[in-house]
Amino acid sequence: MKELPIHIQLNPDGEKCLYEQIYEFIRQEIRNGNLLQNEKLPSSRYLAEYLQVSRTTVDMAYGQLVSEGYLEARPQKGYFVCAIEELYDIKTEAAGVQRQKEDADSKESYAYDFSPNKIDMSLFPYATWKKITKNILVDAKSSMFALGEPQGDLELRTTICRYLHASRGVNCKPEQIIIGAGNDYLLLLLEKILGRHVPIAMENPTYKRAYQIFCSFAYPVSLIPMDESGIQMDALKKSGAQVAYVMPAHQYPTGIVMPIGRRMELLKWAKEKEERYLIEDDYDSEFRYRGKPIPSLQASDQYGKVVYIGTFSKAIAPAIRISYMVLPEKLLEKYHQNCGFYSSTVSRIDQTILNEFIRDGYFERYLNKMRKHYRMKHDMVMNELHHFEKDFHISGENAGLHVLLTDKRGRSEQELWELAKKAGIKVYRMSDLRMDQKSPVKEETAENATIILGYASLSQEQIVEGLRLLFQVWQ
Amino acid sequence: MKELPIHIQLNPDGEKCLYEQIYEFIRQEIRNGNLLQNEKLPSSRYLAEYLQVSRTTVDMAYGQLVSEGYLEARPQKGYFVCAIEELYDIKTEAAGVQRQKEDADSKESYAYDFSPNKIDMSLFPYATWKKITKNILVDAKSSMFALGEPQGDLELRTTICRYLHASRGVNCKPEQIIIGAGNDYLLLLLEKILGRHVPIAMENPTYKRAYQIFCSFAYPVSLIPMDESGIQMDALKKSGAQVAYVMPAHQYPTGIVMPIGRRMELLKWAKEKEERYLIEDDYDSEFRYRGKPIPSLQASDQYGKVVYIGTFSKAIAPAIRISYMVLPEKLLEKYHQNCGFYSSTVSRIDQTILNEFIRDGYFERYLNKMRKHYRMKHDMVMNELHHFEKDFHISGENAGLHVLLTDKRGRSEQELWELAKKAGIKVYRMSDLRMDQKSPVKEETAENATIILGYASLSQEQIVEGLRLLFQVWQ
Repeated sequence: MKELPIHIQLNPDGEKCLYEQIYEFIRQEIRNGNLLQNEKLPSSRYLAEYLQVSRTTVDMAYGQLVSEGYLEARPQKGYFVCAIEELYDIKTEAAGVQRQKEDADSKESYAYDFSPNKIDMSLFPYATWKKITKNILVDAKSSMFALGEPQGDLELRTTICRYLHASRGVNCKPEQIIIGAGNDYLLLLLEKILGRHVPIAMENPTYKRAYQIFCSFAYPVSLIPMDESGIQMDALKKSGAQVAYVMPAHQYPTGIVMPIGRRMELLKWAKEKEERYLIEDDYDSEFRYRGKPIPSLQASDQYGKVVYIGTFSKAIAPAIRISYMVLPEKLLEKYHQNCGFYSSTVSRIDQTILNEFIRDGYFERYLNKMRKHYRMKHDMVMNELHHFEKDFHISGENAGLHVLLTDKRGRSEQELWELAKKAGIKVYRMSDLRMDQKSPVKEETAENATIILGYASLSQEQIVEGLRLLFQVWQ
Repeated sequence: MKELPIHIQLNPDGEKCLYEQIYEFIRQEIRNGNLLQNEKLPSSRYLAEYLQVSRTTVDMAYGQLVSEGYLEARPQKGYFVCAIEELYDIKTEAAGVQRQKEDADSKESYAYDFSPNKIDMSLFPYATWKKITKNILVDAKSSMFALGEPQGDLELRTTICRYLHASRGVNCKPEQIIIGAGNDYLLLLLEKILGRHVPIAMENPTYKRAYQIFCSFAYPVSLIPMDESGIQMDALKKSGAQVAYVMPAHQYPTGIVMPIGRRMELLKWAKEKEERYLIEDDYDSEFRYRGKPIPSLQASDQYGKVVYIGTFSKAIAPAIRISYMVLPEKLLEKYHQNCGFYSSTVSRIDQTILNEFIRDGYFERYLNKMRKHYRMKHDMVMNELHHFEKDFHISGENAGLHVLLTDKRGRSEQELWELAKKAGIKVYRMSDLRMDQKSPVKEETAENATIILGYASLSQEQIVEGLRLLFQVWQ
């Protein structure tokens, strides 16, 4: 584990940007065998100072190398050259500047990937979707190819309005709904509606992309700890936040369903000041296994304090880039003032397809089928997890598409994660979802080492085999 | 026949028994119009399971509703809401905040609408588009329904890269291209890349929506007057702006094509300071009638100073919500840092359709066809406008899809606009596109009263008839 000062000749006027030069140099060193497997690289701070470039430049080069599988990031230890045999699978083409993968392991192959973010598309009614698309295109007049309303087509908004009322108790009019190409886009609009520098509170741990997005708004983000009922009200009150982003139906990743008492406290908090609002991300609310369905927070909101956000990306297909946001009247006014001129980001054709898919009952049927299907997988998971109960506390099992295993034996997440990895099983660390503004390195204490197991995209065989193998390696 | 999961909040400890609560809830939903006539209710078995009550309880509630005439039981089909018009408490739409129409006249009907923003879709190869869509859906694997790269699919970026190089001289790699659902969305991303409070300069008059968008960013906007070569450099230099948004190929609405000298001055200005950039909106560059096509500003950029933005909404169809932004390397790094995590706003299906449409030559063929078609309309317009030359100075006729008529007789835009309106002709006022930060009321001096006439969406007959009528009323 030596600290190796790599000599790189950078050409600031070169055709390629600095980070690309660093990236290509190190990649070549690895491919040439000048850097050997398991060799530790200089810290990004050290290398940045040495090369007189910004640390971000080095971080980007390292990130790229990690995402392409040349380097491995070991938390609190640094960057290491990957094992040689893994290198043979790497495509030789210079990839150029590529998307920074959030997860360093994403390109490695695992026999069992317990991802909490993937979904099962095996039962998706492709034929129906194709049929609707075909019919729409056959009938399509040129109006279908015209630019629609900025908020989205009224037909689709009406359909979503009725769906949300029926399934989630959401009370709204179609006029309050904004349709957009994904939650991320809707949050961008919401920034324009809420304004700048709005102090925002988030549950911790939370949905990482939403956290990144609020940070990119330069919103001061307060990370609020949670208890068994969800976001802690005392900490929220002390935070000075003006807006709170919460997932009451099924908090990600803890799986906590916020009970009515805490919801009322939250609404009371929001009501106390005019500028306070709650953003309800109704994440995964479609899938619930135990107990009665709990209506949305918006359903209990008497004072126009809740911005309700949902998506069809998870319940239908990730490619369906259609999300919706229900604005309370006051924010709707601000929408019209501040961003009513932003053109719609969803084509009328896609809106029409989705509208017919919901309106004609296919969506409901598909959801029912998926509820049963996921419940079956969920039950299989819980059945296998009986064996784990001696060593782990199991939680988050009442809803959603993943469960949490908290270690009772004092092992670290890293240890559990590595054991699983060696057996070809990809599991997920809770510490990756604990946001910490101060340090990019996530704190992880052995006391609450928690592993996330998502099961949506695994087959029944994979679930049983994977969990049995996991049981063995964690014994 | 949709299965509608009705959301009912049951209170098991309530005064009323469960069946009564269900009965009253559904009755209220019907009265409020949330359940529409002929709408199918969930089966009693389904609803019982959903609400975790016995089936008898639901059957009793349904039975009561049937006996009171709210529901109708259709043998072997289920329960449906009865058609009783009087029951609906028709909600007054007036209560809600409604979309603010930008144009008060948009609901009035005109025999001739010389809109500069509409396009002609009559020659659009719908059949080809449908065929491609159909083929893609037939072959579609589930990967097509998965979420794509945040920047957009590499295939489409590669195709766009080649197209831009061939047609506009743009020099870039696919890695530099960001695909997004419309220009407005890309500008939202660009805000995150450029940062906050960036002083920006715009040509005046200019594209109104871009102006509104920059204002919504709270960017200080300097409106720079133009001379016959475009944006005035002295005024730009004095403005203190860091970024300039320009339309060199065909300025909207003036139609000025920026000559190479002014382009070089602009690039020199941008080069002088590291934080300076140019945003090139390559608006309408596809349609040019006189002289050789002029390459993009980006093509002359040696120093990574130009952000190039273009869209397929105008050249293909407004419903195609696909735009592209070419980032210089430095801003690309910032993109990866600040917003590489924003999910793509365009579905993979739409990206694949567009990719094949361009790749297989349909786009080029369509563009050629439209160039001829628009040139023919353009020539007809110019032919009719000969009669106007005594009273008007005609400009902006070398490119694009509109011309400008500047009055020589001292009449005001308002006067000309009203005369046209009375004859059922909709014309557009230049003053609406002159932005003025100080006063929302646009200044209009009689000396430069200018009317904009767009002709893309009018038929040949409409062009001739409309312009002859216009000539009469303006005499």
